[in-house]
Formats: sequence, C-alpha cells, structure tokens
Amino acid sequence: MKTDLDALMASKSVDAILVTGPAQHNPAMVYLTGVGHMTEADVFKKRGEPAVLFHQPMERGEAAATGLQTINYSKYPLTELTEQAGGDRVRALAMRYQRMLEELAFEGGAVALYGKTEIGQALAVFDALRELVPRLHFVPEADDSLLMEAMATKDASEVERVRRMGAITTCIVGRVADFLSGQRAKDGVLINSTGEPLTIGAIKSRINLWLAECGAENPEGTIFAIGKDSALPHSSGKASDLLRTGQTIVFDIFPCEQGGGYYYDFTRTWCLGYAPDEVIQIYTDVYEVFQKMLAAYAVGRACGEYQNLACELFESKGRPTGLHTPGTEEGYVHGLGHGVGLNIHERPWFSTARASKDVISPGAVFTLEPGLYYPERGMGVRIEDTIWANPQGGFEILAEYPYDLVLPVKGG
Amino acid sequence: MKTDLDALMASKSVDAILVTGPAQHNPAMVYLTGVGHMTEADVFKKRGEPAVLFHQPMERGEAAATGLQTINYSKYPLTELTEQAGGDRVRALAMRYQRMLEELAFEGGAVALYGKTEIGQALAVFDALRELVPRLHFVPEADDSLLMEAMATKDASEVERVRRMGAITTCIVGRVADFLSGQRAKDGVLINSTGEPLTIGAIKSRINLWLAECGAENPEGTIFAIGKDSALPHSSGKASDLLRTGQTIVFDIFPCEQGGGYYYDFTRTWCLGYAPDEVIQIYTDVYEVFQKMLAAYAVGRACGEYQNLACELFESKGRPTGLHTPGTEEGYVHGLGHGVGLNIHERPWFSTARASKDVISPGAVFTLEPGLYYPERGMGVRIEDTIWANPQGGFEILAEYPYDLVLPVKGG
Repeated sequence: MKTDLDALMASKSVDAILVTGPAQHNPAMVYLTGVGHMTEADVFKKRGEPAVLFHQPMERGEAAATGLQTINYSKYPLTELTEQAGGDRVRALAMRYQRMLEELAFEGGAVALYGKTEIGQALAVFDALRELVPRLHFVPEADDSLLMEAMATKDASEVERVRRMGAITTCIVGRVADFLSGQRAKDGVLINSTGEPLTIGAIKSRINLWLAECGAENPEGTIFAIGKDSALPHSSGKASDLLRTGQTIVFDIFPCEQGGGYYYDFTRTWCLGYAPDEVIQIYTDVYEVFQKMLAAYAVGRACGEYQNLACELFESKGRPTGLHTPGTEEGYVHGLGHGVGLNIHERPWFSTARASKDVISPGAVFTLEPGLYYPERGMGVRIEDTIWANPQGGFEILAEYPYDLVLPVKGG
Repeated sequence: MKTDLDALMASKSVDAILVTGPAQHNPAMVYLTGVGHMTEADVFKKRGEPAVLFHQPMERGEAAATGLQTINYSKYPLTELTEQAGGDRVRALAMRYQRMLEELAFEGGAVALYGKTEIGQALAVFDALRELVPRLHFVPEADDSLLMEAMATKDASEVERVRRMGAITTCIVGRVADFLSGQRAKDGVLINSTGEPLTIGAIKSRINLWLAECGAENPEGTIFAIGKDSALPHSSGKASDLLRTGQTIVFDIFPCEQGGGYYYDFTRTWCLGYAPDEVIQIYTDVYEVFQKMLAAYAVGRACGEYQNLACELFESKGRPTGLHTPGTEEGYVHGLGHGVGLNIHERPWFSTARASKDVISPGAVFTLEPGLYYPERGMGVRIEDTIWANPQGGFEILAEYPYDLVLPVKGG
C-alpha cells in the first residue's frame, strides 16, 4: 500500500523516487498525484520526506489541487538552459533536473524511476543527467519494482474505486446482453429491427457510448471476439464480423476511471441462441476450474501454485496446457490472473513465467480468468472476475454477474 | 512524411529505428503499425529495409493485421532467458533484444529509440542491452527527433483523418452550444428543465458521451473552464462549477481517433447571455490577431517569426506578452500554436522556447491559438483552429466553425 512506500524504499536501499510524465493515463503519477490535467510533471520523493511536484507554469492550478508541495518549472527557465547548453535540448532538460535536485538538496544516491513517457528522449536526458550528477544512479527494476510492490495491495479507498468500476462494468455487460437478446436471428445471423445484420463494430460502439455515459473510459479497447477470433485469447474481434448463433463470443471488458484511474477486468463467454455440445463441455470445464480456484485461494500462498493447480485440473480433463505442453496454442494457454489497479496488468502475477515471487496478500485485487481455446475448431471460452483478498482472509468477487453461456435471441 | 524516413535516417546517420510499447495510445507505434490491440510490441527498422514487428504469442492475429513482417516473441522464451540470467528479469529482457537484433543481423550502430512506455524498466533494460551489445548506441534526441521530423508533415491520407476528427469535433461543439442555448438562466446561473443548476461536470459528461457516439476519444481530457479558471490557460475547469452568465468560458476540445490515432485541436470562448464590454474588447483583440496570423502565414517562413509577430500585435494593443514581459501570467502568455497529428502536441513548434528550428512546410498541420488571460479579473479568451499548409501553398482551416462570443440563453 502507499503507506508502505518509505519502508519499501528502506528495505531496498532506495534513496528517492522520481516519477515523470503526464498526470493522466500514467499509473505511477496518478498514484502519487491523483488524476489531474497536467501534460508534463515530475514528482520527486526523498525517503522519509513528502513528495514534491514540479509543474508547468500554465498548470499551477491543477498542480495545487494535488495537495502536494509544488515547484514551478519556471524557476529553471528552459530557454536560458538551452542557451547555456549550446542549443542542446537534451542537455538543457538534464540541467533542469540537476537544478531541481539541488533545490531539494539531493546530492545523489539510488533513485527508483517511474512514469509512462517517450522512452527515446527520456533515456537521452537521463543519460545526460547521470553524467552531470555522477553520484546519482537508477535502480534497475522490472515489474519487481518497489512501486509495483506498494501498488500490489490496495487500501479501502482504492478497493472502493475498483468496486465502483466493477459496478459500471457489469451494468454495461448487462445492457449488452439485453440488447443482443432483444434482436432476432435470421439464417443464423443476428439482425436489427430494419433487417440489417449486426456487426461487432456496432456492438463496440454501443459499449463505448455506455462507458462514456457512466463516466468510464476503455483506453485499452474491448475484446468482443466471435468464432475463430474467440479462440485467439487476445484478438479483440473484427469490426465487420457478423454475430452468428451457436458460436462462442468472448467478451472481455476492462474499463478504467476517466483520465486513467482504477481499472476493472471482466470476461464472459456467450453463445447466441444455442451452444453446441462441444462448447458446453468446454464451458463446463472452464467454469469448474473457475469455481475450484475460487474455493482454493488462501492468503499467504504462492500465486504460481494456483497456476499449476489450474493446469493440472485442465490436464485431468484432457485439455493441453503449458505445464506439460510448453508453447501450446490449444487448450489452456495463458496465465490464471494478474493484479488490477491503476494498471490493467500489475502484481500479483499468476502466470508461470512471472509468478515465482508473488504470494496472495491481504489487500490484493486480481483477476481469476481460466480459459480454453481451440483455434482449429474456432472455439474459445474464458470466464473472468476481479477478486479482492480482503483483510479478513476472505476472497470477494468485486462485481457479481451471472455465468450463463447461452443468450437467448428471438427466432434463434 | 513517412516516406521520408529512410532519407532522414541517412541524413542523421541513423542505422536503425526501434519503437517499443503498446500499439494503442503510443504515437510512434501507431505511426508504423496503425492502431491495433497489442499490449506490448517492438518494431525494428533498419535503414533501407522494411520494418519488422515482434509481438506476443497471443496477439499474432493483431500483429498479422498490420501487414508488417512479424516475428513471435515466443522464439525467445522469456522463462528460459530469465533462468539463464539467474532470475534477473531486466537482464532477460535485454537478452531477448540481443537475440532479436541477431535475428535481423544487426550488429550494432546508431539506433533511434521511440515509444511511450514505462521509463524505469525501459531504461534498465536498455542500459543492460548496451552492455551486451557495446557497438549499439542510442541517438540522443529530444523533440528534434527524426521521427518527429517525419511526422511534422502529413500525407493526404493523414490530413483526411485529421479533417474527419475536425468534423466530429465541430459537430460536438455545435451540440454543446445548442444544448447551452436551450437552457434557461435564473439569477445569473444556467438551470435545466427541472430547475437544477447545470455544472461543468454535467457538460463534460455530455461531451464524453457525444465523443463516444462519434467514435472518438479524449484521452487528454477536455478544457471547459469558466471565470477565474478560464484565465489559467490549462486549467481544465472544476466539475462542480456552475455556468454563470457574462463570464468567459474557454472550451478547448482535442479528441483523437479511438485507440489513440489522429487528433484535432479546437477552442472557442463563449459568454452565456451577454458579454461585458471588457470581455468584448479582449475578444476583439484576440480575434484580430487570429485573422492577421492566418493572413500572414507563408510556406518556408520560420514559425518563431509568427510568435514574435503575435506578441508585437498584442503589445501594440497594450497587452503584455512574454516578448517584453518574460514570465508574465497576464496578457498573452503561451505559444501561438503547435503541430497536431498522432500527438496532440508535435512539430512544428510556434512557441518562443521551441520554435528556433521550425519553418512552415507544405503538409504541416498545426494550431493557431492566440489568447489573452487576466487571472485577477477572472477573464480568459482563446480562439483556436487547426490549420493545414496544403501542397499548393494555401492555409486551410480543417474544420470551420463560427466565432460568436455570446451564446444566447433563455432568460439571459
């Protein structure tokens, strides 16, 4: 949790955190500043001290609204620095950082660096900064970063924000279900009231409309994939595809608060009108694994154990998985889940490749998403909810929604 | 233009371009791949050769849809590489890049690096890569990058996409104007049909709804700021603020294609019901500068000249500007414009600090946005259109919209 930041910094011998980039759609910045409208900012936090926000002159109002101590970049005029740097903007930006660090009496040490920004310019600027301030070095972190560790458990206010996004998400999924059920099937294809066939593109437009209406965004898009595409776990679905009865539709929706706040992640698989026996069997297997996992979760256990357990369960049903068929593109081909927060994918990790270090901790918010995929048969099934490991040791689905496979349609 | 990439690489002695990050909301990646649903990818383009796309196994369908040559990351299994790296994921990711470069027979040289991604991990990985491949070095570029130079002029298909976003933008601005004009003012505050006062939050919700309906997104938010906030050029406006008559409303809207494609940028300033004389005078001055600039544009001239010209014009009317009052927060306090494309702010730059190198080239698409701000009087005015320097040497507003200051309201 955010309150653990200083302790995490101490345990990892990190002297300061530097977060850079815009204040929107930038998880690390949003974590420290809230969602504001700042196009460019830097937050510098020395261990044991409050964070300081550097901001553009024109964004001082938004900066003040964060409640952080603020310093205007205008104290270090870039025009002058660029002149001093002989017109070299990269060096001028590095010199500005140097001045900022001097202002905060930071003479060097281990800095953990975060923020979603243009990598080319940032790398050039930080290379130059390391030349200017040789005692400064950046801690090499991947997704084991101390910030991701802090973010991996949520406090009550964060859980409420995810829960609210869950309510919006399931409300919209319900609207989509109602809308589809209100249409008529003709020759195996869903048509609207004027007899035109419905497309996935039209469904996605409605989803976007309803998301906006509810004050949510889906910057990562929505997966609404039918048939062959539903068998490719991350195919988002072709806009021109028609909605055919009896085919699997994987509907994976993961919106966030406006401006890039907390996400929710949710999937249901539907067949319009009817489901072929083979699909019903696949669905039954996935649903059983889903329920068994939910029952098996325990605080303190390694996430990787559950990935293995899911693989074993699927294999016991004759479904190939990565456990004994590495690289398989048929059967159970992905991770069991991932943390959800300001990033749609964050810790704890449940996939084999990344799970080694993660355990289920109280406060974790993560997806449970078993699935089975058969590209050659054009069938895919995934069921996903977002789960909260609450402080009492319980596991709570943050937004309940029915698990029906078949969506009845008129004439279907 | 994109067709200039190889020539620009040659002129800057750049041997290859590497673009990393997701395929959505990542301008450099979208430029080379189009908008697809890929969570993580790398595009590597050697000079004089076509670009190659590396993609996640689960995103092979989306990768194929780009039309680029594709290589699946599964060729370099991260689990194995992480084992080889003794559990060090940063090093494993660097080793994967090393394998990818070997695959493309790239032995080192000057690489221009692009993409919006998490800076901390990327810096660590590219530090490690430079250790593994000592002959590779990254070209230090800021916003003078060769990619930004290519993007600074648009081909016909890009201009059509910006124009289409302009049509959506002005359509929505019209709907907002109609909606506001349809309401009633009571005691100087706009109320809806049930007598409740309207808030800026409610207006922004409608804007988001209409944007979604039109297939657009506004990842950077919308500025709808009244009174005191309108005098702070980048205040986005407080959701709880009421809509009072006679106050300046700066409405700056800059949506993009779904998934992070081309932007449009547009501002009008409105007063509901009536405008005080002082506001009319400010507005008249801004509009005059706007028209004089539009008439003065000529291909081949330096962008900075126009910024100076605008300052001089404003100063001749007694308005302070940065030209002779550096750091002023009153009067004309920002740049005259900026390029618009896959980035909401890109080249050519018109602001004093950044304009030095840029000239107006045929194919440039940029904003014209003079403004005047008086924080102590709670007044701000900005007028902005997006302009295309067409190949015939003409300057075309890509989406026309009226310049009325006063929006009549009922009872106002």
